[in-house]
Amino acid sequence: MTVNVGVIGAGMIGADHTRRLGTVVSGARVTAVTDIDADRAAALAATAGARVLPGDLELIGADDVDAVLVASWGPAHARSVLAAVEAGKPVFCEKPLATTAEDCLRVVEAEQRHGSRLVQVGFMRRYDAGYREMKRIIDEGGIGAPLMVHCAHRNPSVPESYHSAMATHDTAVHEIDAVRWLLSDEIVSAQVLTPRRTSHRFEHLQDPQIMLFETAGGARIDVEVFVNCRYGYDIRCEAVGETGTVSLPDPARPVVRGGGRAGTAVLQDWKKRFAAAYDDEIQDWVAAAATGGAAGPDAWDGYAAAMICDATVEALGSGGVVATGVKDRPAFYAREEAGR
Amino acid sequence: MTVNVGVIGAGMIGADHTRRLGTVVSGARVTAVTDIDADRAAALAATAGARVLPGDLELIGADDVDAVLVASWGPAHARSVLAAVEAGKPVFCEKPLATTAEDCLRVVEAEQRHGSRLVQVGFMRRYDAGYREMKRIIDEGGIGAPLMVHCAHRNPSVPESYHSAMATHDTAVHEIDAVRWLLSDEIVSAQVLTPRRTSHRFEHLQDPQIMLFETAGGARIDVEVFVNCRYGYDIRCEAVGETGTVSLPDPARPVVRGGGRAGTAVLQDWKKRFAAAYDDEIQDWVAAAATGGAAGPDAWDGYAAAMICDATVEALGSGGVVATGVKDRPAFYAREEAGR
Amino acid sequence: MTVNVGVIGAGMIGADHTRRLGTVVSGARVTAVTDIDADRAAALAATAGARVLPGDLELIGADDVDAVLVASWGPAHARSVLAAVEAGKPVFCEKPLATTAEDCLRVVEAEQRHGSRLVQVGFMRRYDAGYREMKRIIDEGGIGAPLMVHCAHRNPSVPESYHSAMATHDTAVHEIDAVRWLLSDEIVSAQVLTPRRTSHRFEHLQDPQIMLFETAGGARIDVEVFVNCRYGYDIRCEAVGETGTVSLPDPARPVVRGGGRAGTAVLQDWKKRFAAAYDDEIQDWVAAAATGGAAGPDAWDGYAAAMICDATVEALGSGGVVATGVKDRPAFYAREEAGR
Amino acid sequence: MTVNVGVIGAGMIGADHTRRLGTVVSGARVTAVTDIDADRAAALAATAGARVLPGDLELIGADDVDAVLVASWGPAHARSVLAAVEAGKPVFCEKPLATTAEDCLRVVEAEQRHGSRLVQVGFMRRYDAGYREMKRIIDEGGIGAPLMVHCAHRNPSVPESYHSAMATHDTAVHEIDAVRWLLSDEIVSAQVLTPRRTSHRFEHLQDPQIMLFETAGGARIDVEVFVNCRYGYDIRCEAVGETGTVSLPDPARPVVRGGGRAGTAVLQDWKKRFAAAYDDEIQDWVAAAATGGAAGPDAWDGYAAAMICDATVEALGSGGVVATGVKDRPAFYAREEAGR
Repeated sequence: MTVNVGVIGAGMIGADHTRRLGTVVSGARVTAVTDIDADRAAALAATAGARVLPGDLELIGADDVDAVLVASWGPAHARSVLAAVEAGKPVFCEKPLATTAEDCLRVVEAEQRHGSRLVQVGFMRRYDAGYREMKRIIDEGGIGAPLMVHCAHRNPSVPESYHSAMATHDTAVHEIDAVRWLLSDEIVSAQVLTPRRTSHRFEHLQDPQIMLFETAGGARIDVEVFVNCRYGYDIRCEAVGETGTVSLPDPARPVVRGGGRAGTAVLQDWKKRFAAAYDDEIQDWVAAAATGGAAGPDAWDGYAAAMICDATVEALGSGGVVATGVKDRPAFYAREEAGR
Repeated sequence: MTVNVGVIGAGMIGADHTRRLGTVVSGARVTAVTDIDADRAAALAATAGARVLPGDLELIGADDVDAVLVASWGPAHARSVLAAVEAGKPVFCEKPLATTAEDCLRVVEAEQRHGSRLVQVGFMRRYDAGYREMKRIIDEGGIGAPLMVHCAHRNPSVPESYHSAMATHDTAVHEIDAVRWLLSDEIVSAQVLTPRRTSHRFEHLQDPQIMLFETAGGARIDVEVFVNCRYGYDIRCEAVGETGTVSLPDPARPVVRGGGRAGTAVLQDWKKRFAAAYDDEIQDWVAAAATGGAAGPDAWDGYAAAMICDATVEALGSGGVVATGVKDRPAFYAREEAGR
Repeated sequence: MTVNVGVIGAGMIGADHTRRLGTVVSGARVTAVTDIDADRAAALAATAGARVLPGDLELIGADDVDAVLVASWGPAHARSVLAAVEAGKPVFCEKPLATTAEDCLRVVEAEQRHGSRLVQVGFMRRYDAGYREMKRIIDEGGIGAPLMVHCAHRNPSVPESYHSAMATHDTAVHEIDAVRWLLSDEIVSAQVLTPRRTSHRFEHLQDPQIMLFETAGGARIDVEVFVNCRYGYDIRCEAVGETGTVSLPDPARPVVRGGGRAGTAVLQDWKKRFAAAYDDEIQDWVAAAATGGAAGPDAWDGYAAAMICDATVEALGSGGVVATGVKDRPAFYAREEAGR
Repeated sequence: MTVNVGVIGAGMIGADHTRRLGTVVSGARVTAVTDIDADRAAALAATAGARVLPGDLELIGADDVDAVLVASWGPAHARSVLAAVEAGKPVFCEKPLATTAEDCLRVVEAEQRHGSRLVQVGFMRRYDAGYREMKRIIDEGGIGAPLMVHCAHRNPSVPESYHSAMATHDTAVHEIDAVRWLLSDEIVSAQVLTPRRTSHRFEHLQDPQIMLFETAGGARIDVEVFVNCRYGYDIRCEAVGETGTVSLPDPARPVVRGGGRAGTAVLQDWKKRFAAAYDDEIQDWVAAAATGGAAGPDAWDGYAAAMICDATVEALGSGGVVATGVKDRPAFYAREEAGR
C-alpha cells in the first residue's frame, strides 16, 4: 500500500522531504502540495507529479491525501496540525510543533480526544544511528545511572536574521529533545551563561551561549551553542553515568595524511550531518502512517520542548535559574512510550 | 513509475534484497520470485505480495517483470544474466557475475550486441560512503599518484564448508574490485603468502592469507584475508600516494569508557557493515533500471574480477607470481565509465 | 655543577621526588631529608645516601643544601617556603603554596623583597607535553581568541577522608592553574553545580561537581570533577576559540582489537598520567636552581590558585556566584612571565 | 656513583647523546670525546667540560673513562666495540653494531670470552612506551599467538646520498629489530617488492619498497618503507594474533578543529618521534654500566640484524626470496634474555 502524502510548505525543508518521499523512502508518494507562495508550490508539485491545492485545510481534506507533512513556517504549524488531527489523518510536523506551549497543549488535547497517536514531531536526531546506539547503551546500563550530559552544537555561521533566542528555539532545541530522550528524564530548570561574544557575529547576537539544565532526576546537562564557530558543523554529546561514559561518534570520514597533518574534513552543512536520520525518520513515519498512526517523538515531546525553550530564553534574559514548569507526562503518552 | 522486479533466488541474500525493494528503496516492487526450492520461493513471495514462477526463464520472460535481480547460487548466474540481456531487461547480478571468466565474457559480448549497458554486478562497496569519499579524495589528487594500497578483510569465523579458494572468491573479491575502482587501474599479477595457520580453523583451510597484487600502473596492493580472526568483522584499507595517504574510516560507533577501558564495539555481522551501501546500491540500480539501463559496477568488472580471482587461487597453489591476463577494457565500457 | 637538594617531607610525594632527583634528572642530588616522622625521614634518606636533619629550619640553613623541595603536608608549607626565601635559597613547593591566601601573599612579598624569583609551585601540568602543545597552539592564534574551556577531571575512586572541599583544593586546583596559564587570563568568579550524587561514594561527599568559572576577559570555563567515576583516571580539556578548538590528547596507548571491542586501556593511577611532566618539572627546577632562580609556576600563581579555590568552595556552600578577588598580577611577576 | 663516559664520534648523534648524558639522564658525565675531526671533537667536548683524546683506543684505555659510547660512522664501529670489550668496559654502540655480519660475530665471540654482557646496541624503539606496551600485551597473550605484523616506516624526504640499500640498513633495520623483539621470534627469509617509484625522489633510488619477512615460527611481516612520503615522519605497526590485534599508537598530540578540518600535526623530525625512547635507552644503559654490565638489545641482536639486512638487500637485487641464515641464539644470550 502506498501512502498518499500532502505537503504543506514548499520551502527548503518541504522540498527536501518531498524529494525524500518520492525518491528515497519506500511506500509513499506526494499527491498534493500547498504553500502561501503558489508559484513555489507549483514548482515543487511538478517535481513530484503532484497537484497544487490552495491552502492547508483544502489539502488536509482532500481525498487523495492520506497523511500530512507540515513544513510551513513555525507560526502556521498549530493550525495545520490541529486540522489534521481533527480530520483523523496522520501528521508529521517539523519542529516546532507550535510556537507557544499553549498551542502545543491544544494539539495534545485534540490527539487525546481522537484516542490514539496521530502526530509525529520532527526531532530527527532520535533516528541518528549514533544517538540510537548511545541510548541503547544507556538503557542497557552500560554507563550506570546517568549523572551528567555534556553537549556542544556548533555551526560555521548564521545569517543576520538569526537572533539570540534562536540559539534556543532553532539550535539547542535538538539537544533538549535528545537529552530528554537519552535519559528518559524531564528537564525542570534552565540557566544560560554568556561568554564573551565572538567577534565573528552580527551585533545583536549573543554567541556563544552555555545552557545549563537540571532534570527531575537531578542530572545536569550543559550545552554549548556556538553558531559562528567558523570551522564547521559539529555536534558533540557525552553522557556520564555512575560507572562510565558514552560519547556520540563523529561522522565516519576517511583520515587523510598530507601536508604535515593527519585528520578528517569537518562537515560544513547540517543537512548532511543527519541525512540518514532524516531518511529513517520519514521512512518510520510512512510505515506508521500506513496503519493510521505515528511513530517517534510525540506531541507531548513537542509541548515539553516548547516549555523548556521558553524557560531557556527567559533565563538568557534574566541571568538566573528558571523553572520549566513541564507537567507530568499523561498516561496517554506514557502508554505509547513503549512503542517509540 | 514503479519498476517491477523479478527475483531469482530466495536464499538469504535474495530475501534481503526483496525486503529492501519492498520496504526501503523508492520506486520498485517485487512482482515475481523463483527458486529451485519452490517452498522457499513461495514463502518469500508471500512477504512481498509477489507471485511464484517455476524458473528463471519464465520469470525473465514475464510481462510483469521489468527488471531482474539474480541472487541464486553462483553457477546459475551466467544463464540467468544472459537470458535477461537477451530479453533486453536490466539485470542486477550478485557477485560473481559468473563462475568462469569465459562465461563472464559471454555476458560482456551479449551486452555489447544489445548496444547499451543492462548489467550491474553487486560489488556494493562502491556505494559505501567511506570508500566513495576515499575515491573522491584520490581522484581529486588528495594523496598524489597512488603507489600502494594496504587492505585487511577479517571475519570473526567461517563455517566448515569455507575452503581456501573462497578466501579469494568470496572474501578478497571485494577488495579486488574496490582497489581496481579506487585506483582506476587494472590488476596484472597476483601472489599469495601463507602465514602459519591460526589454530582456530578447520583443518583444510589456509587462514590467514596475504595476497599481493600489482597493477598495470605499477602500484602494489597487499590484502590480509583472515576469516577466523575471532574479534569481529573488520575492513581496513589505506591508499598511499606520492604526497599522502587516505584510510577507510571505521564505522562511527559511540565510544564507551568503562571497566578500565575506552573503546567501541566491533561489528560482528558483515551485513551490518555495508547495510547502507546495499541500500544505495539497489536504489541506484532501480533508478537506472527505470530508464532501461544499469549503474555502478559493470559486466567488465565482473569479468576482470573473475580473471584476477582465478590467478590468485592459482598463485595460492603454486606459491609463485601469476599473471591475471585481464584484457584491455573495451571502448564500450570505457564509454560507460563516465556515468559511473 | 650538581645542585644539593634538601627535601622537607618524606611521604609519598617527597619520596617520589627524591627518587626522581637521584635516578632520573640530571644535575642534582639529595643531601638532606627531614620529616616530622624521624623514622620515615631516615628510611628515605637511606635510599638517597642523604643525612637526616631534625627540622625544616635546620635543613634550610644547612651548608650542604643549595635548594629546598617542600613536600610536607599543606599547613606546613608556608613556614618552610618563607624560611627558604629569607635564606635566599631556591625552593620548590608542592601545591598548595600555602593553605591561606594571606600566607601566599606573605611569600609573594618576601620574594619581592628578595628581588628575584626563588619559588616554584608544583603545578606539573604546565610541563605535560599535551598541555604545552595546546598552549603553543593557542598562543600562536591557532584557535583564535579563546572563548570557552571545557574540562573534566575524573578519578576512579577516593578514600573516605576525601571531602567535598577537596574536589576544589586537591583536584580542580590543577584545572584552575592550567586554564589560567593556557588562556593567559585571570579567573574572576566561581559557581558550582551539584548533580545528583553518584551512589559509589561515601555519604558526606558531593560527587560529582560541575564548577563554572569566568575570566577577566569574559571566557567561560566548566570543570566536571568526578572522583568516583569507577572506570579510570581521565583528564579532558578542550579550549574553544573564535575560529577553532584544541583538545588535550589522551595518553598514547596501543589500540587492542579483541573480544568484540576495539580500544585502549584507561590509566588507573594519576601518577602515571603525568609521570613525564613531573620529571620535566623537576629537571626544569634543578636547572633554574643551579643558577639561583626558579622556573615555571610562580608564587603569584600559588596565591591566585588559593583565592580561586576559596571562592569555589564558598560557591559550593552558597549555590551562588562568588567573586574570587584575585588582585592584579604585580609587575615583578609580569616581568618574570616571559621566562616561563 | 657517576659513570664517566667516553664518546667516540662527535657528529649529530654523538652530540645528541653527549647532551643527553650531561643534562637529561641521571648518574653519568661525559669525560672524554674523540672524533676523526679534531675540531669537531673539541667543540663537543667543550659543551660537556670533557677533554679531547686523539683516537678511540686512547679513549677506551683512559682511566677516566668507565664506559664507552660509540657514535662514529658505521665502518668504524667494530674496531671500537671490540677494543672496549677487550678492555672489559661497558659499551653502547649505535646501530649498526658492525657493517658486516662477520664483524658482528667477532664482537659476539669477544663478549662471550669476557664472560658477561658488555655491549648494548642502539635499537631505541625497544624503549618506546608504545612498543613496550605492545610487547607486554603480546607477551601476556592479549592477541593470542602472533601470525602477522604490518609495518610502515615513512620519512618526509631523504638527501641525495641516500641509496636503495639504505632503505634496509638505515631505515627498515628498526622494524627488523622491533619485530624480532615483539614476537620473540627470528626472521628466516626476506623478499622485497618494488612499487612504481614516487616522482619525488632522486633517480637512483627505489622508493617505496615493500619488504616481506617470514619468521622461524611462520609469522609473516610486511614493512612498507617510503622515505619520500612528503607529509611527515610516520611509524605504524600492527601485530595480528589468533584472537586479536594490537597497534602502535600515534604520538599523543592535541586535536585541532579549524579551517574545515579536524586533526593533528604529524611530526616531521624523526628525532622527536623517539626522543623519550632515546632518553630511557641511555638512562638504562648508564644504570647497567654503573654495575659493569649492559641492558637492552645485545650483540646477538646486532648480528641478527646484520644478517637479515644483508638478505634483504640481496632480495631487492634478485627479486626473489632470500634465506637470512641467522644462526640459533647461543645460550649465553638466551641466559641474558630474561633480564631484558
